[in-house]
Amino acid sequence: MIAVSLATANHIIAECWLLATFSEDQGQTTRRFLTPPVLQVHDHLRQRMNALGMTTHTDALGNLRGLWQPHAESLRIAIGSHIDTVPNAGAFDGVLGVVLALELIRLAQLASLPVAIELLAFSEEEGVRFATPFLGSRAVAGRFDPALLQLTDQDGITLEQAIRNFHLEAASFGPASLEAAQLHPRTRAFLEIHIEQGPVLEAEDLSLGLVTAIVGQTRCALNFLGHANHAGTTPMHLRRDALAAAAEWTLAVESIAREGQNLVATVGKISAQPNAANVIPSQVQLSLDIRHSDDAVRAASLRQLLDRAEAIAARRGIQATCQTLLDQPAIPMDPHLADRLAQALADAGLPLRPMTSGAGHDAMVMATRLPTAMLFLRSPGGLSHHPDEAVRPADVANALHVAFLFLQRLVASPE
Amino acid sequence: MIAVSLATANHIIAECWLLATFSEDQGQTTRRFLTPPVLQVHDHLRQRMNALGMTTHTDALGNLRGLWQPHAESLRIAIGSHIDTVPNAGAFDGVLGVVLALELIRLAQLASLPVAIELLAFSEEEGVRFATPFLGSRAVAGRFDPALLQLTDQDGITLEQAIRNFHLEAASFGPASLEAAQLHPRTRAFLEIHIEQGPVLEAEDLSLGLVTAIVGQTRCALNFLGHANHAGTTPMHLRRDALAAAAEWTLAVESIAREGQNLVATVGKISAQPNAANVIPSQVQLSLDIRHSDDAVRAASLRQLLDRAEAIAARRGIQATCQTLLDQPAIPMDPHLADRLAQALADAGLPLRPMTSGAGHDAMVMATRLPTAMLFLRSPGGLSHHPDEAVRPADVANALHVAFLFLQRLVASPE
Repeated sequence: MIAVSLATANHIIAECWLLATFSEDQGQTTRRFLTPPVLQVHDHLRQRMNALGMTTHTDALGNLRGLWQPHAESLRIAIGSHIDTVPNAGAFDGVLGVVLALELIRLAQLASLPVAIELLAFSEEEGVRFATPFLGSRAVAGRFDPALLQLTDQDGITLEQAIRNFHLEAASFGPASLEAAQLHPRTRAFLEIHIEQGPVLEAEDLSLGLVTAIVGQTRCALNFLGHANHAGTTPMHLRRDALAAAAEWTLAVESIAREGQNLVATVGKISAQPNAANVIPSQVQLSLDIRHSDDAVRAASLRQLLDRAEAIAARRGIQATCQTLLDQPAIPMDPHLADRLAQALADAGLPLRPMTSGAGHDAMVMATRLPTAMLFLRSPGGLSHHPDEAVRPADVANALHVAFLFLQRLVASPE
Repeated sequence: MIAVSLATANHIIAECWLLATFSEDQGQTTRRFLTPPVLQVHDHLRQRMNALGMTTHTDALGNLRGLWQPHAESLRIAIGSHIDTVPNAGAFDGVLGVVLALELIRLAQLASLPVAIELLAFSEEEGVRFATPFLGSRAVAGRFDPALLQLTDQDGITLEQAIRNFHLEAASFGPASLEAAQLHPRTRAFLEIHIEQGPVLEAEDLSLGLVTAIVGQTRCALNFLGHANHAGTTPMHLRRDALAAAAEWTLAVESIAREGQNLVATVGKISAQPNAANVIPSQVQLSLDIRHSDDAVRAASLRQLLDRAEAIAARRGIQATCQTLLDQPAIPMDPHLADRLAQALADAGLPLRPMTSGAGHDAMVMATRLPTAMLFLRSPGGLSHHPDEAVRPADVANALHVAFLFLQRLVASPE
């Protein structure tokens, strides 16, 4: 039996902190897609992979890929996460899943598991540089639209030029490079291990969560149009106050989301016109972000919220309009793999906590290509995208142990 | 008996439109304190006053003053309003009260009323140029703090320099000029006729309103401090959403104001941080503007609203703080004069509609010096501070008629 020690977990955490020093900015961690510190991370990880006897290469989109191929091989899988970060990031979002996979491969080697493992260190997930997320995993999953190459960053550099600059091989990049980046067709499963980035596991004092789906998401812009008037001379009953309507609807969003099972809905942005202390607001714009793992539930809740907006507006003699900015379906994880992960959790003596991921992940893109599983680690304080982002050593040890047991289960019964 | 014809009303309205053409801007009406178009207005009004046999002068603060002094005089009163405007103003706010007073003096002459009338065309009420209102009436009422002379406009010109530039008499302006601007001590009453600038009279299909008080006003900045979190990964029950708290409180403001008698309370400004669609708001700032004619009612309502803010914040595990920016007491109009105005309305066969003024007026400053009365005319559409600002000829005729009957009543029983 393989034992995972806290010393191993501490080593993984230390590696993450080390990688966090490779940054565009002094004193904080910012590592956007195809920037110089990405090369430093690649160098470091490549050495680790080589030390494990893995072959490595960097694909067209700048994903670092390492392959462990044992002599006896009954199954080929992929494991990974991303190594880019948001500005002023923590040390674990994405990176932990890559570093943890290295240790998992070491354990697989120790146990002589007959499984070939491709480690994917995705170059881009956060969508910071080109305002478009998942650029790395899209290429691997064969979901990369070449039109994306014309995206420009804040310096006016196109994605295509950024790729050419990164690879220093201007001549060779083309459609064939994208084709070559795709996952090997024999790959049977993808596993992503990632911090939860939310407070659920901590609130329930749990180490790990089993992701059953990545939620679908609708994003809308709501507009309430009332009538501006003097705050002193207009009696309450003669007002058509757009902000009072917006406030009523904001509470409806909260209340309808609270009634739903695992439904989240957020009004994160608000602006009012004319936005003067002595003028009744004529117009208010709000954002709505609503997410659920069941697209039908999300659609029904959205309908309910828009009906409520119209009812509030009608009662107040104002207008409500809604513009849909994003409508992204939920992505279920593979039930067969989830079953194996659940068994692995039981093998490790850990409770099963099925949960949905409220945030997008590379696993969401990979799941459109092959059976995909995802494991969450508790996020202390629910904190992420923040320098104080953390993980607990015991949770890291548990995640590594469960991932190894999952590999064993998968090798034992791959179908 | 004096009859007021619609032709006279139309003449008054035409005069207002003519004065609206004296503007700092081409094609719209903007006439700030002591700017060149003020001189054009003065020239025009001075001619009208002189034609009525009035003596005229301009005081230190640039108020144009005309005196009608009959041979037989049993009483001296003052009537007036302001001739400055907001940017892109209408034609009637302030100006109507001055032009109407000219016609009133003509009627007093025709009826040989033994009353001396000083017509006050206040130079400054809106507070646009020096961000400080009532500069003209403060001087007349003896409430002008000389420290105000150091205020600067957007071009860095001090109020004192602006006064010197306007009068072209750099040497003579000083404390004695301010002293000389004060109202003649024998003046027994001040009357201001002004458009309502609100929708009340129109909603009740009334021509005129009798102002019983100018409301007191509190202005506060509310701050709700919650906790930012990911909109996708944070379940509803683990949120500390500052915007949801602010929305709940905004509705409480509306509901408490609706329950109050003649209470108005407005949340006109709002801003949220970080103000991103996918982040639960950590912080929200709101403005509160609350007004009532009874200072005790206003204070109690404010207390109730702040208690509510604290209760909402406590229940949601967030913080609420409040900063008071303005606390201005209510100014009652003189009951004796209000009684005379009520009698005049009855004499004219018009209904009595006592009302408070939700906006500040020169009458508010004058009332600190001498018995003051104020009469409102209906504002079509409740519109003011807008080029579409209007008055109805029949209402202007009624106002002039009632003002004349008021003068008669006052002459008949001055105490």
